[in-house]
Amino acid sequence: MRLRFTKMHGAGNDFVVLDATRRPLELSAAQLRHLGDRRLGVGADQILLIEPASTPGVDFRYRIFNNTGNEVEHCGNGSRCFVRYVVDHGLTDKKTIRVETVNNQLELTLADDGRVRVDMNRPIFDLARVPFDASGLVPRAEGGFELWPLADVGVELAVLSMGNPHAVMRVADVDSAPVATIGPRVEGHPRFARRVNAGFLQLLSRREVRLRVYERDAGETLACGSGACAAVVAGIRLGWLDRRVEVHARGGDLLIEWPDDSASVLMTGPAVTVFEGEIEL
Amino acid sequence: MRLRFTKMHGAGNDFVVLDATRRPLELSAAQLRHLGDRRLGVGADQILLIEPASTPGVDFRYRIFNNTGNEVEHCGNGSRCFVRYVVDHGLTDKKTIRVETVNNQLELTLADDGRVRVDMNRPIFDLARVPFDASGLVPRAEGGFELWPLADVGVELAVLSMGNPHAVMRVADVDSAPVATIGPRVEGHPRFARRVNAGFLQLLSRREVRLRVYERDAGETLACGSGACAAVVAGIRLGWLDRRVEVHARGGDLLIEWPDDSASVLMTGPAVTVFEGEIEL
Repeated sequence: MRLRFTKMHGAGNDFVVLDATRRPLELSAAQLRHLGDRRLGVGADQILLIEPASTPGVDFRYRIFNNTGNEVEHCGNGSRCFVRYVVDHGLTDKKTIRVETVNNQLELTLADDGRVRVDMNRPIFDLARVPFDASGLVPRAEGGFELWPLADVGVELAVLSMGNPHAVMRVADVDSAPVATIGPRVEGHPRFARRVNAGFLQLLSRREVRLRVYERDAGETLACGSGACAAVVAGIRLGWLDRRVEVHARGGDLLIEWPDDSASVLMTGPAVTVFEGEIEL
Repeated sequence: MRLRFTKMHGAGNDFVVLDATRRPLELSAAQLRHLGDRRLGVGADQILLIEPASTPGVDFRYRIFNNTGNEVEHCGNGSRCFVRYVVDHGLTDKKTIRVETVNNQLELTLADDGRVRVDMNRPIFDLARVPFDASGLVPRAEGGFELWPLADVGVELAVLSMGNPHAVMRVADVDSAPVATIGPRVEGHPRFARRVNAGFLQLLSRREVRLRVYERDAGETLACGSGACAAVVAGIRLGWLDRRVEVHARGGDLLIEWPDDSASVLMTGPAVTVFEGEIEL
């Protein structure tokens, strides 16, 4: 099978994007792994498959697969690339696009500057839904939110879900933060039954932060969209941040807005087409 | 500038291949780095530029750049991809192709099974030409060749050049060999003024070995063509191996032949086209 694809990235998180809107495309796990393989294949963090929507009022459906071949829930950086793709390839002339994912619906907007704004839905603070087992722990309250101590790792975590689980810890300097050692210990901590994305947050001001994220499965990545949302929401709840915050990640900048406690989190960021390709699978 | 390219690999060592035979192509270091970048660009160990030859009797010239933008001397895996490329793209109808590199000439043959045989020229044993500073060291002789002790690293090395410098050490098992720790200490050892490619060689029989190589600049790679030649030549000189040896590297297999001490080393191995692409630089 000869397959056309587009290689894209959003703040350094990279994707092989495939158009399955005109005809169905079923890829085996081996084919997905081959597309994701950085030496023997194309190479990407994830493979993004664009399909027709199955729900009225929804424009597209998209599915995301890790480069291990597993289908995953959601990806903020991927959803921005999805918008750039359907606009650039003439699959829609709308500027606000509704898309269904495997477990969710998202509304996405192409801004005039070419960046894409993603409605990331509302954060979830119910610990059972993260899931996080806090039994026997005594949290420290700050600004009306809780910081949970993990004594065995020696860290204090804000815990929440953006549809996927996040643990955020404040550090003095992300450059010297022990992401490679603390990251995996938090990510795989037994209190997180489905593991967790571990965020390392450095405050520059009330409107500007730096962030590194150790992601589930992937290890440290250049930028994690939902991780940026989780870190800013935690910082707002803890009284550290204003409602509109610029996040500097290694792969690029993301603007995160959370207008009020009952609102959706809005993420605005870049989506870049790197090249077009054709592969025999 | 819109640029067509082909992504290829030879035993897992991967290349962005560019055709500059019809019109000159001058790429800046930033453009080369972008092509080599595995997240923000195309991604490859090296960029291979095919140009017209400047010498009579030579078919092509090729240049190789690391993904850091530096031009490098020679690459066995790249030369195999070069042959597959010029044959598959109809740039020649010869089966034996003569090519000039920045410091050398090579003769390359496309075999009937699609593999490519590369004449890798003769090994160089003159330590000053590696270059290796052996002053004050006492070598251990084995089979008429020398093993040089690096006491501070705790290893014993066969040292030679295949046009680029190599240090080969024997290990009991490549899987458990400390490539990530010993590799960089050998690669950057002050006795190697231009650094060195560090090979870890495990003997399976007199005709079959396993090999891992920690390469200059690149770190551990899936396969290093000149490293496989160097390891087999060292093994022959040390009395461990026959003249025709199958080398199992992580990215694939290479057949290395060294008919006699005054002959060229012949390397036969695969060259695979992964995909065709087009990028705006």
